[in-house]
Amino acid sequence: MEAMHADKYSLVTHPRDPRFLALRSLQNQRDRIQTGLYRIEGIRHVARAFECRAPMQSVFLEPSVLTNRFGQKLARRLRLSGVPGIRLSPQLYREITLATEPQGIGVVLHQHWTPLGSLRLSRDSLWLAVESIDSPGNLGTIVRTAEATGVSGIFTLSSGSDHSNPDPWDPAAVRASMGSLFSQELVRCSNREFVEWAKAYGVCIVGSSPGGLLDYKALRYRWPVALLIGSERHGLSDQLIETADFMVRIPMRGGCDSINAAVAAGVLLFEMANQRREA
Amino acid sequence: MEAMHADKYSLVTHPRDPRFLALRSLQNQRDRIQTGLYRIEGIRHVARAFECRAPMQSVFLEPSVLTNRFGQKLARRLRLSGVPGIRLSPQLYREITLATEPQGIGVVLHQHWTPLGSLRLSRDSLWLAVESIDSPGNLGTIVRTAEATGVSGIFTLSSGSDHSNPDPWDPAAVRASMGSLFSQELVRCSNREFVEWAKAYGVCIVGSSPGGLLDYKALRYRWPVALLIGSERHGLSDQLIETADFMVRIPMRGGCDSINAAVAAGVLLFEMANQRREA
Repeated sequence: MEAMHADKYSLVTHPRDPRFLALRSLQNQRDRIQTGLYRIEGIRHVARAFECRAPMQSVFLEPSVLTNRFGQKLARRLRLSGVPGIRLSPQLYREITLATEPQGIGVVLHQHWTPLGSLRLSRDSLWLAVESIDSPGNLGTIVRTAEATGVSGIFTLSSGSDHSNPDPWDPAAVRASMGSLFSQELVRCSNREFVEWAKAYGVCIVGSSPGGLLDYKALRYRWPVALLIGSERHGLSDQLIETADFMVRIPMRGGCDSINAAVAAGVLLFEMANQRREA
Repeated sequence: MEAMHADKYSLVTHPRDPRFLALRSLQNQRDRIQTGLYRIEGIRHVARAFECRAPMQSVFLEPSVLTNRFGQKLARRLRLSGVPGIRLSPQLYREITLATEPQGIGVVLHQHWTPLGSLRLSRDSLWLAVESIDSPGNLGTIVRTAEATGVSGIFTLSSGSDHSNPDPWDPAAVRASMGSLFSQELVRCSNREFVEWAKAYGVCIVGSSPGGLLDYKALRYRWPVALLIGSERHGLSDQLIETADFMVRIPMRGGCDSINAAVAAGVLLFEMANQRREA
């Protein structure tokens, strides 16, 4: 029954079919930026996107791999709710899948960016701004932690050229976010726009760095607050450090002068969330 | 000059050369267990291992890729300190390297396990026990956080069969640990041996789980203490949950019922380390 429904999507077998090429191109950040689309894979991620009503552009299936009953049901639900789609030949699907254990289902989604002007600020809101990050997996892990700590929105910043913002739609970031991406407000802007927004609305900017003056536990955070995260290797830019109201550090023992960026973001966000709980 | 020294290692070009095969086999956990060896790559990691006097079995080089001056000096220092080694042909090196940007140097190290009986316990010591973990990258990140929070030693546990312990010598774990592995005490034992050790020395066992009774912030930790980490997907085994003195949870907001295991370990270890600082 499910197989029949899946069969109604047309079959793509030619490696130069434009539908296949469009799907494959979404592995590149440049093509994601140009199209405003991104791709996810796997039953769990697709189901979560569907539940969150993430805006779907299309679905792609490989029926001989999609043997899981729940996955087959999901494919049918997508089809019945009007999502267009294609079936890929086993060969094309193998070429395109990034999953270690491919499940035969994926969707293309519209990136959802929130315009800076539409953000709603409450008195105790907590924000996150990511200037740069070494690995997309870390970025996705940070997005997941952001949801768990009640972050209101995530800024991906760039110092100048538009294309250098951290990319939450990278396949590894999407995977590591475990679905948290679908329900987060994401804002893409320049460092300058972010700082102007923060100053205009009285948002306290807290940066973190191994050389920060204040122990992150000693600071009583003022609300609303935004936490700045830079890359593991290069930290935050001077431009952002200068605009921060506070620079905090996480004290470390041993020969360590740093921890993983996603762990550091987690430690800081939970400290902020805890202080808010207690306030 | 450096090139000359590197030249003194004999050149391996044949894909069936036993020295090459031995090197390649260390990608498999089974072979790592059988030989008690593991492999690391890259100038930074090799330099850190050398500084930490990690026990080296051999070095492997690919001189045409090892163009970095510091890397060449490092190769010479290894050679002068008597570490045996080989040069690999470009083709064999490409086949074996796991680095995204290969630097032409790597070493084979002896795994260093500390016997349970040799552990030294202080009154305020903090221990970590990892029962299972979904990704070796997460395990390495946890090892790095353990060093930063002053953990005295890390147990890798198994419920029965010896070969199911989390493997800190996995290449991805080694890489993510950023050198913290070299200076950590690592203990491999069964769940039962760990629990007997903890009870014998009065070590408080704290497990974590989304269903834990206590908010991790509300508990005043008793020292010495050991934190138990289970896998993201399946959590801790019932066997360990039953032996825990306390089960804590990290409260979460949004649709989240979990966060990344390495982030969770970081949040918990820093809370413990902070309470110890304040005590």
